Amino acid sequence: MSLMGRQVQVVSYPVGQVGPEHFEVVDVPVDPVGPGQVLVRNTWSSVDPGLRLRLREAAPEGYFVAFPLHSAMDGIMTIGVVVESRADGFEVGDTVWHALGWRDYAVVDASAVQLGGLGTLRTLDTSIAEPQWYLGALGGMGLTAYAGLSVVGALKGGETVWVSAAAGAVGSLAVQIARLHGNRVVASAGSDEKVNWLLDDVQVDAAFNYRAAPVRDGLAEAAPDGIDVYFDCVGGDHLEAALDAMRRDGRVAICGSISEYESEPAGPRNLFLAVAKDLTIRGFRGSSNLDLLHTMQAELGSALADGRLQQRETVFDGLASAPQALIEMIAGRTTGKTLVHITDAR
Amino acid sequence: MSLMGRQVQVVSYPVGQVGPEHFEVVDVPVDPVGPGQVLVRNTWSSVDPGLRLRLREAAPEGYFVAFPLHSAMDGIMTIGVVVESRADGFEVGDTVWHALGWRDYAVVDASAVQLGGLGTLRTLDTSIAEPQWYLGALGGMGLTAYAGLSVVGALKGGETVWVSAAAGAVGSLAVQIARLHGNRVVASAGSDEKVNWLLDDVQVDAAFNYRAAPVRDGLAEAAPDGIDVYFDCVGGDHLEAALDAMRRDGRVAICGSISEYESEPAGPRNLFLAVAKDLTIRGFRGSSNLDLLHTMQAELGSALADGRLQQRETVFDGLASAPQALIEMIAGRTTGKTLVHITDAR
Repeated sequence: MSLMGRQVQVVSYPVGQVGPEHFEVVDVPVDPVGPGQVLVRNTWSSVDPGLRLRLREAAPEGYFVAFPLHSAMDGIMTIGVVVESRADGFEVGDTVWHALGWRDYAVVDASAVQLGGLGTLRTLDTSIAEPQWYLGALGGMGLTAYAGLSVVGALKGGETVWVSAAAGAVGSLAVQIARLHGNRVVASAGSDEKVNWLLDDVQVDAAFNYRAAPVRDGLAEAAPDGIDVYFDCVGGDHLEAALDAMRRDGRVAICGSISEYESEPAGPRNLFLAVAKDLTIRGFRGSSNLDLLHTMQAELGSALADGRLQQRETVFDGLASAPQALIEMIAGRTTGKTLVHITDAR
Repeated sequence: MSLMGRQVQVVSYPVGQVGPEHFEVVDVPVDPVGPGQVLVRNTWSSVDPGLRLRLREAAPEGYFVAFPLHSAMDGIMTIGVVVESRADGFEVGDTVWHALGWRDYAVVDASAVQLGGLGTLRTLDTSIAEPQWYLGALGGMGLTAYAGLSVVGALKGGETVWVSAAAGAVGSLAVQIARLHGNRVVASAGSDEKVNWLLDDVQVDAAFNYRAAPVRDGLAEAAPDGIDVYFDCVGGDHLEAALDAMRRDGRVAICGSISEYESEPAGPRNLFLAVAKDLTIRGFRGSSNLDLLHTMQAELGSALADGRLQQRETVFDGLASAPQALIEMIAGRTTGKTLVHITDAR
């Protein structure tokens, strides 16, 4: 008798806000393991803002592909344990990452390139890190924060950097990395509780609640002399405020625009300031910077080990909670890395 | 009796379209020449899109300063001949450039830094070039085109580049420089006559009239495989079309946004494509790349001398024609570098 698994499927595309009605948890027989494949029992699955962009007929051109209806959602980073292997280099019991998330069992082609290479099957060293850290600080989130600051934003040390959504998965790492690299760090988030965490725990230099006053005002108060780099996860009024506050030769690193994922986006009306102040605005995907993965893991792994870096998490329990986790995250009600802990695989 | 000169003054700031009623030609006594100063009889004065941004109470932050009402308009590139000198290194009869344009006589401080250094008083070699070329290919326009392609847009050779406003002062140089550097060049302009000039005379690889069809359609036909670099003088729908057409790792070099100088600007609604396709968008001012001036002048001077590069000009005669020159240029009714030939200095 074949193994039965469960997976979360998209059953309709949301217009505007995503809700539980757009998903269904479906029982599916797990395929037999073929040559070059492994069977993974998933333990942790990722919940990322970018998933929202793929709940459409077509995702933005050049981005990761859209999720088809009534099918498995491929291309979501996941941690699991190998329970059967027909692929060289992978043993039963190995903890791995791959990109077939939002399901309890996954048959993974060891050589399949997923998420631009980032999601390709890989064995993880769990002697130095908790498994789920590989979905956060030591995975795509860490890579996005690290590459966004060091390469895309070309942050030099001794500069002033503003990180938006700074209590989020990427932002909470970006503020810490920027601080470790000797910069003045300004952070924004959507609640006083998050702001307090950023000030007291993370010890950023300044922080403000963007829901308490116009972003421009909060930023002007937190960074009265302007900013050199803006790490953008939000877009919209945040990006406009950043362009206003930029010093000459400033840089914007855009990893996402979560404020615009559920509405018609409007571009920054003050983009001309890029000409006036010689600004650079770069969009990027963490996975486009795979060459930095090992450097990032070494540096952040050591900082995690000795406590200079913390990974904050919001954990949802059980596979079926994945849609709710996404909904809560987009609404700004989670802190740090949002994770689904798949404790209920059969 | 002191010398009487004339200057164009702004008498009110335009809301929407600029018109002749916003200017006045005023007779003014020319100041005596002090130590470290020279008196220049101006012969050619520049007319640039960016001047429109300074016909306001305040120009965009970080840009060149606004023109005050009822005063001389400082900060406009100009060519003239020294008629009196009390500054070391400048002799009567020298052809010079400086930044006190839109007047017939100018008393210039030899050491005053103007337009970020670009407009500081400088003697020109007229044995190798027509004087007015220093307001075009061998001046700020050449520097903007050259720096925008080579540094800001990081054009590598063998790539596809789109230049908008390609029959304009900067654009007409950018298409030629890009071609000389071995790229596939796509050009757009606002009339069939300009498009024909670009195709037949400049011999770009493809060109389209952006008024004949939506920009996106014209671009898609001219560059069916997409573009690597977009040289932007226009903004608005042009910039959106470019983001759509960009290949991964594409670059946008923005030197201006003339389509938005007389209206409320709207940012590009598809800016998220920068994330999806790892794009870089950089604004810049030519004068921020002064370190390239000599390299540019050597390369473009040689290309002008042997006919590989041409400077096209639209010349307005007499100082009083300067406002009309600006109006015609913004309306897209001039080709190449727009110049005022000051033939009527007393």
